[in-house]
Amino acid sequence: MPKQVDHEERRQAIAAAVCRLASQRGLDGVSLRHVAAEAGVSMGLVQHYFTTKDEMLLFAFRVVSVRVEKRIAAALPQPPTTRLLLRVLLTAMVPHDATSRFEAPLWVAFLARAILEESLAAPLREGGRSLLDFVAGQLRSAQQAGDVASSGFDPALEAVGLLALADGLMVQTLIDPERADRAIAAIDYQLDRIFTGSTKVARPSRRRQRG
Amino acid sequence: MPKQVDHEERRQAIAAAVCRLASQRGLDGVSLRHVAAEAGVSMGLVQHYFTTKDEMLLFAFRVVSVRVEKRIAAALPQPPTTRLLLRVLLTAMVPHDATSRFEAPLWVAFLARAILEESLAAPLREGGRSLLDFVAGQLRSAQQAGDVASSGFDPALEAVGLLALADGLMVQTLIDPERADRAIAAIDYQLDRIFTGSTKVARPSRRRQRG
Repeated sequence: MPKQVDHEERRQAIAAAVCRLASQRGLDGVSLRHVAAEAGVSMGLVQHYFTTKDEMLLFAFRVVSVRVEKRIAAALPQPPTTRLLLRVLLTAMVPHDATSRFEAPLWVAFLARAILEESLAAPLREGGRSLLDFVAGQLRSAQQAGDVASSGFDPALEAVGLLALADGLMVQTLIDPERADRAIAAIDYQLDRIFTGSTKVARPSRRRQRG
Repeated sequence: MPKQVDHEERRQAIAAAVCRLASQRGLDGVSLRHVAAEAGVSMGLVQHYFTTKDEMLLFAFRVVSVRVEKRIAAALPQPPTTRLLLRVLLTAMVPHDATSRFEAPLWVAFLARAILEESLAAPLREGGRSLLDFVAGQLRSAQQAGDVASSGFDPALEAVGLLALADGLMVQTLIDPERADRAIAAIDYQLDRIFTGSTKVARPSRRRQRG
């Protein structure tokens, strides 16, 4: 009887092999054969998931993306406030622990290739746009609820700014890991600025209810 | 008589060849021989500047860095205000025109390799730290001059934020060129926020002088 194969486990093992190769030597010159050897599986099995190097990057990108989404979901307090939700989301993008540092070279290799290859740029662009809409929507709701400083506050441009901040901090932290703590502090600083309004608004309103 | 060789012109031509290869097909699998052919020079001449692929990246990175610095210096109004200086600096990092879009794949290829190779990470890290000190210094002076909102303003964390913003916008604009205008708007939005203090303070004080 053939042993039962855990499809998801195999996907994870192959994606982990791509990540290991990316973080150890880079993906320059890496072939599907290298990936098969690193994952300890046959070429035929690797080719079941991808047949070109661009497909390999896309495969690993998707597996790691789902993993990151699950980590973010698991880290969210219940119920999450907008501010905590944004903090978990933005700090997840900064390589501040062993797992995220291990995955980061794959992100950068994917990005470097996506600049040249539309089939890789498309999912990155769509992911980026929907994340942007999500964050802008969250900030818009916070604004309507009076949780942010209202004067001159632009939810769309704040969302562009916060997500670019996190992307830039990812890049800087990879090059200069000593800056990881300051990267997190820079995210908190911006969230403090945006949500300062909520502290100021919420407290008097509670006082009024008591009085 | 041998014709006189313009050393600087040759450096520029070879760096341009590396940029072209990076933006056309990526640097995966590109050899020094490819660079020599692309630049229309001998292998011996290329090897005068670099003998390994990492040295090639470092060479092109340095040539392009000097070019960007010159463009920034040329774009600065005289005398530059802190705000205009920061605007020129930050927008120069966003690939918004043909030149910067042409150079961008080289930056990303350099970054992708620098994550794995300390000899490339070191100059990027040092450059990043001195830029950070420069921007923080500018913001500190602006704060002392009363040109920024003083309450809770942290020049060091604002500098981290502005430079990460620009790095992140670079990445996002490469993947999604339609976002270039919004990227510039996001920079202006942050500068508006930081330097609003000066407008708000200056106007009443002018009115008082008139009255």
